[in-house]
Amino acid sequence: MSEPVPPCVILNEPQLAENIGAVARVMANFGLYDLRLVRPRDGWPQERAWASASGADWPLNEANVFDRIEDALADLKVVYATTARPRETMLPILTPREAAAELNRASHEGQTIGLLFGGERAGLETLDIALCHAIVTIPIDPKFRSLNLAQAVAVNAYEWRQTVLDRPPAIFREAPEPAVQEQMIGLFEHLESELETAGFFHPPEKKPAMVRNLRVALGRARFSDQEARTFRGVITALSKGRGRVLAKLAEKKRERGE
Amino acid sequence: MSEPVPPCVILNEPQLAENIGAVARVMANFGLYDLRLVRPRDGWPQERAWASASGADWPLNEANVFDRIEDALADLKVVYATTARPRETMLPILTPREAAAELNRASHEGQTIGLLFGGERAGLETLDIALCHAIVTIPIDPKFRSLNLAQAVAVNAYEWRQTVLDRPPAIFREAPEPAVQEQMIGLFEHLESELETAGFFHPPEKKPAMVRNLRVALGRARFSDQEARTFRGVITALSKGRGRVLAKLAEKKRERGE
Repeated sequence: MSEPVPPCVILNEPQLAENIGAVARVMANFGLYDLRLVRPRDGWPQERAWASASGADWPLNEANVFDRIEDALADLKVVYATTARPRETMLPILTPREAAAELNRASHEGQTIGLLFGGERAGLETLDIALCHAIVTIPIDPKFRSLNLAQAVAVNAYEWRQTVLDRPPAIFREAPEPAVQEQMIGLFEHLESELETAGFFHPPEKKPAMVRNLRVALGRARFSDQEARTFRGVITALSKGRGRVLAKLAEKKRERGE
Repeated sequence: MSEPVPPCVILNEPQLAENIGAVARVMANFGLYDLRLVRPRDGWPQERAWASASGADWPLNEANVFDRIEDALADLKVVYATTARPRETMLPILTPREAAAELNRASHEGQTIGLLFGGERAGLETLDIALCHAIVTIPIDPKFRSLNLAQAVAVNAYEWRQTVLDRPPAIFREAPEPAVQEQMIGLFEHLESELETAGFFHPPEKKPAMVRNLRVALGRARFSDQEARTFRGVITALSKGRGRVLAKLAEKKRERGE
C-alpha cells in the first residue's frame, strides 16, 4: 500500500512571515507539503518566510493564497481546526493523536484532508471552526497557553507521520545480540579469580553473596560477544598491567638499594 | 497520585539565544521547567532568549549553565539523547512516545530524568551520547532532516505531557534503582584512568572509540548506587590490590636476599 496523502496545512490570517517559514520547515520535516495561506497580514510572498524555512522552500514556492477561508477549504473532505481553547461548539474534540488516526484513515480512503490553524494573536473564530469537522486540542499546560504557531503545526505533523509509520510498528532495537552464557561465565570466573588474588573478598564468608551481586549487576548489561572479550581484556590490563608497573617500581627501588 | 516530576532539558552547546527562548516557551507549554545549558555559544544570560520566550521566563531565569556535559547530567538517573541520526552505538533507540512512557515510569519511581539535545549545527557527539541510556529519534522525513531545536524539544515535551495525562504507568521494576550519573561518570573515569596507567589504550588514536564502547556496555547494566560503589572497589582491587600483592612478594624476596 502506498503512503496516504498527508493533510494540507491552512494558516488563517498568519501575521509573521518568519512563522510561515517555520511552518514550512516543520511540514517538510514530517512529510507535509500543501500549504495554504488565508489573508497573510503582510502580503505574499515575503522573503523572510524563505529565510526562516532553512531550505524547506517547496511548501512556500507552491503555497496558495486565499481571501476567504471558505475557498481555502473548498476541495477538502475532512478538515480539523486546531485550537488550544475549544469554544462552545458541538464538534468532537480530539487529541492530536486521535486526529492523526482519523485523518490517516480518511486519506487511505482517498479523502482530501486538512488542518486549520488560526493566526498568532486572534486564533480561530467560532465561525471558522464551524467549517471544520472536529477540533484538535493540543494538551497544553493551562498555566502557559501561548503556543507558537509552528509548534502547533509541529505537534500535529509529527503525530501524522508517527501514525503513518506506526502501521508497521516502530523498530525497537534493545541491545546487541548477547554473548552465550559460556562466555559470560568465563568472564565472571576470570574477574573473581583476579579479585580473589587481590584480596577483594573479605570477610571470606561474604564471598558467595559478593560474587552473586557482581554477576547479577554485570549480567544485566547483556554484553555482546565482542564486549565480553573487551572486558576480559580490561580485567587483564587492570590486574596484570598495573601489577607489572608496581613490580617494576619495586624492582628499581631494590636496585637502588632502598 | 501526584504528577511525576518532568524531565529536565539539557541543551549542549546551543548557538542561538532565540532558540533557547523558543525552547523555554515550549517547555512551559508542556509543563517542563528545568533548563540546563552546556557552553551556550554566545554566553549567558542573553536578552534575546527572554524576548523570544513570549513570557515563559521562569525556565530561563532558573536555567543552570555548565562547562561540561558531565556536570549537567551529574544528578540525573535516566538521560536520553535526542538525535535524528543515531550513530553506531549499542544503545536502545526509542520513539518520542516510547521515551515518554519510560521517563514517566522512571519519574513515578522517584528517579531524576532528563532529555539531552545537541546544538543547532553539530548535534551530539558520540561521546556525549555514550553518557545516555537510550537514543530518542523523532520520525523525521529523510528527505528533509533539518529539524529546528525548539521543535525537537516540542515533540518530546508534548509526548511527555500526553503520556502523563494518558495514564499512570504500570510500575514493574526490572532492575534496582540506578545510580545518579555523577557516580557512573566517576566510575567510568576511574576505570579509564587505571586502564590508561595499565597501557590498555593502544594504539592511542583508538582510545576515544574504546572509551565509548566501554561506557556504553557498562552503562547498559544500570548499576545501582551500591553496585557502582562495588565496581569502584573492583577497579581499585584489581589495579592496586594486585600491585600490592606483587610488591609484597618482591619485598619478601628481597628480605630473603633473592
